[in-house]
Amino acid sequence: MRIVIIGGVAAGPKAAARARRLMPDAEITIIERGKMISYAGCGMPYYVSGQIRDFKQLFSTSYGVVRDEHYFQDEKGVRVLTRTEATAIDREKKEVAVTNLENGEKYTIPYDKLVLATGASPFSPPVPGLELKGVHRLNHPDDAQKIAAAAADAGDAVVIGAGLIGLEAADALLKRKLFVSVVELQDQILPGMLDPDLAALLSYRLEEEGVEFHLGRKVLRLEGDETGHVTRVVTDQGDLDAEMVIVAVGVRPNVELARGAGLTIGETGAIAVNEYLQTSDPEIFAIGDCVENRHLISGRKVYVPLASTANRQGRVAGDNLAGRKSMFKGVLGTSAMKMISWNVARTGLGEVQARALGYDVLTAINSNHDRTHYYPGHDNLIIKLIVEKGSRKVLGVQGIGPGEVVKRVDVAAAALNFGATVDDLADLDLGYAPPFNTPIDPLHHTANIARNKLDGVAVTISARDLHDKLAGDEDFVLLDVRTPDQFKYRHIEDPRGMLVTLGELRRRLAEVPRDKEIITLCALGVRSYEAQRILDGAGFKDVKFLEGGLQGWPYDLE
Amino acid sequence: MRIVIIGGVAAGPKAAARARRLMPDAEITIIERGKMISYAGCGMPYYVSGQIRDFKQLFSTSYGVVRDEHYFQDEKGVRVLTRTEATAIDREKKEVAVTNLENGEKYTIPYDKLVLATGASPFSPPVPGLELKGVHRLNHPDDAQKIAAAAADAGDAVVIGAGLIGLEAADALLKRKLFVSVVELQDQILPGMLDPDLAALLSYRLEEEGVEFHLGRKVLRLEGDETGHVTRVVTDQGDLDAEMVIVAVGVRPNVELARGAGLTIGETGAIAVNEYLQTSDPEIFAIGDCVENRHLISGRKVYVPLASTANRQGRVAGDNLAGRKSMFKGVLGTSAMKMISWNVARTGLGEVQARALGYDVLTAINSNHDRTHYYPGHDNLIIKLIVEKGSRKVLGVQGIGPGEVVKRVDVAAAALNFGATVDDLADLDLGYAPPFNTPIDPLHHTANIARNKLDGVAVTISARDLHDKLAGDEDFVLLDVRTPDQFKYRHIEDPRGMLVTLGELRRRLAEVPRDKEIITLCALGVRSYEAQRILDGAGFKDVKFLEGGLQGWPYDLE
Repeated sequence: MRIVIIGGVAAGPKAAARARRLMPDAEITIIERGKMISYAGCGMPYYVSGQIRDFKQLFSTSYGVVRDEHYFQDEKGVRVLTRTEATAIDREKKEVAVTNLENGEKYTIPYDKLVLATGASPFSPPVPGLELKGVHRLNHPDDAQKIAAAAADAGDAVVIGAGLIGLEAADALLKRKLFVSVVELQDQILPGMLDPDLAALLSYRLEEEGVEFHLGRKVLRLEGDETGHVTRVVTDQGDLDAEMVIVAVGVRPNVELARGAGLTIGETGAIAVNEYLQTSDPEIFAIGDCVENRHLISGRKVYVPLASTANRQGRVAGDNLAGRKSMFKGVLGTSAMKMISWNVARTGLGEVQARALGYDVLTAINSNHDRTHYYPGHDNLIIKLIVEKGSRKVLGVQGIGPGEVVKRVDVAAAALNFGATVDDLADLDLGYAPPFNTPIDPLHHTANIARNKLDGVAVTISARDLHDKLAGDEDFVLLDVRTPDQFKYRHIEDPRGMLVTLGELRRRLAEVPRDKEIITLCALGVRSYEAQRILDGAGFKDVKFLEGGLQGWPYDLE
Repeated sequence: MRIVIIGGVAAGPKAAARARRLMPDAEITIIERGKMISYAGCGMPYYVSGQIRDFKQLFSTSYGVVRDEHYFQDEKGVRVLTRTEATAIDREKKEVAVTNLENGEKYTIPYDKLVLATGASPFSPPVPGLELKGVHRLNHPDDAQKIAAAAADAGDAVVIGAGLIGLEAADALLKRKLFVSVVELQDQILPGMLDPDLAALLSYRLEEEGVEFHLGRKVLRLEGDETGHVTRVVTDQGDLDAEMVIVAVGVRPNVELARGAGLTIGETGAIAVNEYLQTSDPEIFAIGDCVENRHLISGRKVYVPLASTANRQGRVAGDNLAGRKSMFKGVLGTSAMKMISWNVARTGLGEVQARALGYDVLTAINSNHDRTHYYPGHDNLIIKLIVEKGSRKVLGVQGIGPGEVVKRVDVAAAALNFGATVDDLADLDLGYAPPFNTPIDPLHHTANIARNKLDGVAVTISARDLHDKLAGDEDFVLLDVRTPDQFKYRHIEDPRGMLVTLGELRRRLAEVPRDKEIITLCALGVRSYEAQRILDGAGFKDVKFLEGGLQGWPYDLE
């Protein structure tokens, strides 16, 4: 059996290693255009930031062996041809035409089974000036080395693109003490990852921690000095000084080889595969960043290139190369990132995505502590749940915060895999101890808020809607139910505001106008919910609480 | 509607608060024997350790209000009678007989619905000397205060019982710089929580970090000096000096009141309830540490008193008091704890439990890093999976380590809730970024090991079996495949040992005896598995690898 794998970064080597363990006698060859193989692409920002000091760590095993051609030959019994480009596939003859990029030699490699793990390439925006010195991408360890070297002398950096890679790059440069601006065409950060409400809160908090966002701005061109070095990013709303620019506006799947071979390209523009990761030619598999996947909630095809998916697919392809019948069912688009002190994670559909797909959506936002408030080191988090109204099915979960949100999103992802309802989520038997969480975990609590909203027990107003309302001259009561000390420390300044601490509310009901809309508010949304129920119980007719409380308030306070 | 709740610690107040929010007009009364209500029982060890400096934090809200009778009256609209003991229930008349413990007054309180949240009491072992000064329990905030005060002057502490509370108490006293010994009747620590293999590894590592375990030892008596203060713990295998003793040998459900009222007590000795948490009298609910629950994997009744369960049950009871039909389906026994730098968690059935219940069990043990090895701050963990062979259903997951194991167990618990197979677990779409995990999460990796074992691809030997084998004079080859540096640093010294680094193994196959059993080993179990596959592929007939590698080796090394 001759197995040829095109692409040597993540999915390809994984498929090769798995196939080798199952097929001791197969001839397995990896073809890789670049010099490096099996490198940790996701680790690059941490090399730029200086957190990883030794560049070799990005392509070494945990026991210190460099993962190069020799490693693959010796430890895995896999032949690797680096600096070798696959230029065409002849499906009739079952052979791959290749060019040795070092000496220009062209030849063919025969296969019985072929795997395409051709990855993705960074998208180049149609902007003049990308060729200037000091303009980088962060797509390859070589890029990381160049950026790290340049960062030593730079003061101002501009990152174009506020997606996952853009923000990881920005974070790395902040750690190198640069002044960092991020320009994004859309009017929110992480548009592929977070809903606008969480994104707004996150960018507000990150700006407090030292990054500058320019959202909803289009980059027109990059300008340089007489040496050809970038000096400025010109946008439709003003210019930004830049000694260094990182362009991170997304990636496109590398499908030319597949298209040239007549394989089916899916509706997303990536290679179409079935559940066994076979392309339209059953002898050819495709895995990793070059394929599209079925979304486990919507059932639609999506293009979500992630290292986690690539690695899991590598194993599945390895199984199927060996004649096992292993399935890759699909993805939830679960992803995670860290910027400054904030953790970010999501799984499933966002609210915007779900509405666009026609779901009847209800959302819940929960501001909380990740651990018991008396345990030292606890921190804040905000979790958002997206639920389908009729079925009560959880469509997605998103979380941000310095607290441990990634864990909650992973737990939710495990439940979403089985089509969990919001009631299932609230029922999960999770481990509890004060160093780790609260007896009712923040994820449970979020599910309970959603259940209370679904059942009409909790009635909420979002931060954005309240902010809009405050800007108008409508009459209503903004009832802050926190303690006087908390109020003094910070509050929403408005003539319609009043303070009645929750513990006094039952006694002071007469002071609250019965004929007006009442919006209660507190720090997290717990006391204001209690206040809403007290007022409801006392016969008030139009009471809502500020969902997520002031912890979820992405605007300035007095 | 008159609702009476007996018990004011965790489940009771939660039920009261939920019922109040749903029933603004109900009369809700909590009866509590003690002075304090709604305290954080699980926080007590952290007060003893000094991590929580202010005692009041154990019974305050996150916004600093003490959760006393006034708080419940003012914020929750719930009447609380402290120092009031319920002595009998008259189910015909629907009233509870109570005694005011301050003045001895006896009276009755009528109810329409009654909730028993009577909790559990620490078990007293039949050992003379428990009345000596310096002998404590850790069951109530008063205990925590006494222990914290006494710890200031004590040098040697002995904890009797190596269960969850015992180890948390030991951890707290270690943080106070006491010399701590733990005596346990069974021959492992955490017998209710961990299987013997993980427990052995954990106790081995914790001893390295400064605690002394005396396992399989029976305490015969406590001895004191002439002032009546404890000085010594006498066991069947020698004596231990003790200036302080903490007795933590488990709890028993408080069921006297229920039994006296003729309510059904379950096979576990705790109060029997249905899915709506109703006792055998549908007007009487029971929740928290006094009830038994259905185990979601085995379907059996179990008694697993946990704060997490108590809190979730409080909400369900609150719903049902208000006429909603809320269900509590059961428990997985998910629990977590931290001792010194080690995190511990489990969910579902342990291997020993599963075998006792007749399951045909396969287990997998995975030593791993919790995050990418190049990311600063990554740490070790060990995860064990317990799988039913035929159905491939995951029965349980356990984890220990300084790394983030609680997250993995929570993720597994979410999957176990839906009857996940090991293939489901390996397929979960979890978030990946270097600060949080590896592209193939340690939980995935554990599932893959189990799948490889189920499918006959991986063949393993456990640390204990290898240790036994090394003690005998059987002929076999112990093939260490790590690097020479790693070998020099530490290894298993044995004349049957040989070192062939993995990268050389394919070339040096001729050096490995073909007629002998080969046991490969490495640091984590990754390279030794690769070596097993290489040898299998080369026609070797009897090859196994040491599961969990040297990271999972609970014995001394050279």
